[in-house]
Amino acid sequence: MAFDRLIKGIAAMQNPTVAGLDPKLDYVPASIKDACFAKYGKTLEGAAAALLEFNKAIIDKIYDIVPAIKPQAAYYEMYGWQGVKALAETIAYAQSKGMFVITDGKRNDIGTTMEAYATAHLGITDVAGEQISAFGADALTVNGYLGTDGIKPLVNVCKEQDKGIFVLVKTSNPSSGELQDKKLEDGATVYEQMGRMCESWGEELPGEYGYSGVGAVVGATYPDQLAEMRQKAPHTFFLVPGYGAQGGGAQDAKNAFDSNGLGAVINSSRGIMCAWKKQGLTEDDFAEAARAEALRMKEDILNTIGEITL
Amino acid sequence: MAFDRLIKGIAAMQNPTVAGLDPKLDYVPASIKDACFAKYGKTLEGAAAALLEFNKAIIDKIYDIVPAIKPQAAYYEMYGWQGVKALAETIAYAQSKGMFVITDGKRNDIGTTMEAYATAHLGITDVAGEQISAFGADALTVNGYLGTDGIKPLVNVCKEQDKGIFVLVKTSNPSSGELQDKKLEDGATVYEQMGRMCESWGEELPGEYGYSGVGAVVGATYPDQLAEMRQKAPHTFFLVPGYGAQGGGAQDAKNAFDSNGLGAVINSSRGIMCAWKKQGLTEDDFAEAARAEALRMKEDILNTIGEITL
Repeated sequence: MAFDRLIKGIAAMQNPTVAGLDPKLDYVPASIKDACFAKYGKTLEGAAAALLEFNKAIIDKIYDIVPAIKPQAAYYEMYGWQGVKALAETIAYAQSKGMFVITDGKRNDIGTTMEAYATAHLGITDVAGEQISAFGADALTVNGYLGTDGIKPLVNVCKEQDKGIFVLVKTSNPSSGELQDKKLEDGATVYEQMGRMCESWGEELPGEYGYSGVGAVVGATYPDQLAEMRQKAPHTFFLVPGYGAQGGGAQDAKNAFDSNGLGAVINSSRGIMCAWKKQGLTEDDFAEAARAEALRMKEDILNTIGEITL
Repeated sequence: MAFDRLIKGIAAMQNPTVAGLDPKLDYVPASIKDACFAKYGKTLEGAAAALLEFNKAIIDKIYDIVPAIKPQAAYYEMYGWQGVKALAETIAYAQSKGMFVITDGKRNDIGTTMEAYATAHLGITDVAGEQISAFGADALTVNGYLGTDGIKPLVNVCKEQDKGIFVLVKTSNPSSGELQDKKLEDGATVYEQMGRMCESWGEELPGEYGYSGVGAVVGATYPDQLAEMRQKAPHTFFLVPGYGAQGGGAQDAKNAFDSNGLGAVINSSRGIMCAWKKQGLTEDDFAEAARAEALRMKEDILNTIGEITL
């Protein structure tokens, strides 16, 4: 099961974190941008080339200490199909370095349409008998608002292709409670109901370490709810945004883990990509600074959860 | 406001429908596929070329009688960045024929990430001072599970660029009730709460005909809930899936409209794309058959709602 691979990587590196690659063009140093614009013009193609260079430089500096990356689809789509091509190339490059790739696309739809998303991001596309991987990530974030019809097609692909999904449960943003915190008639919150559905969907994808292939997104900015869901969804692996730039600290993120230090992977995006700013370095040092921040973050979290044991 | 443009198109053509362009390669006639594979091989590029040909042929046959198309992003992503390029080209082609384009992407995220999606699909991307439209649809479907943080960035782009959004409220699939029909403590259902949020978000995008730029997706397969939401969300324009292949009929879809025959646009995807099968024609007649089905559907719906008056 896909998350077993992620968990093994986490334990081997003693690092339960994932580097979010959400490369706005503003984050890319002028030296990279200038070279790409000189070659392709100030075009979507030029922008996409710059993003890819930026990503590769970070991956080169962290692949031996960070087990996974999480590219956010929005930042690639913003640069058109050319940007989406850079997403596919980023995924392939990270995997060639042994990294686990979570595409953060929050995709959602039903039936055959959800099958198409599953095929696109995790599966194999059939072109007149040729079997081609379109994006080929290891996991995909999804939105479960549409219920089982929107998740089952993914679970099938996950089973066949050894992939995983993370379902939005309690998101890290300030307004996440407008719907997610509403109480249902039975006293449970909407996010709790979503967590229950994750536990149920996950039964079809059991894992070696007690966690299924249906994970959940639960934000570090809501540490109480994180602790609550860790208890109520014991077979559900968590992808935890909100650490760093959004305000969550290691003590908050700690609530995502079980007593073995398993059960979650903590994301940092801007914290990693823009680390040079905090370290008083120049933008051309972005990749070295990303490595230093990744190491600092790892220590920060390990200091609160202790050794990770399989 | 963007939906005013759509509403004018609907009234001018007396046709409150949208053609869903969800082109699986299976739907494309062998003659088109063979030509594209001969040119590009059995590759994602070849598949994408075939999808684009197929779409253009349908658009050519319906643009004078159908006001809008709704390409479903999943079916393009399935064919990689090459497929995503075909999506961009389909959008541009339909707009060149005067059609209103709703990209069905059900995108969702928060803050700057949602801004990136808004920029990608509806807005203008800045590349070092160059202003470039990445996908440039007229409207986008979105998922509101994350609350206001996920919608506000879209509303801002809609205001600036004269675009609209459709938020998932009550979807057409069998399992949509697992979350959406749950009752909250105040007695309202989850979908009703989402409808309330649409009414509230829409206040920033008022329209000429009483409908705001924040629409809702409400399925024809749940006619009672459709009638309920028409009453409870009187300023929210509906995008209605579920007609045809999914089982909804004109009598069901009727509940989406107000007494002037306004307030909704009914989608048909497979019904249009695969119309030749039902009409006993050959696959090479797909575009003519799509036109005949579009006319039949228009008459079917107009017969139940009467003349559309602005």
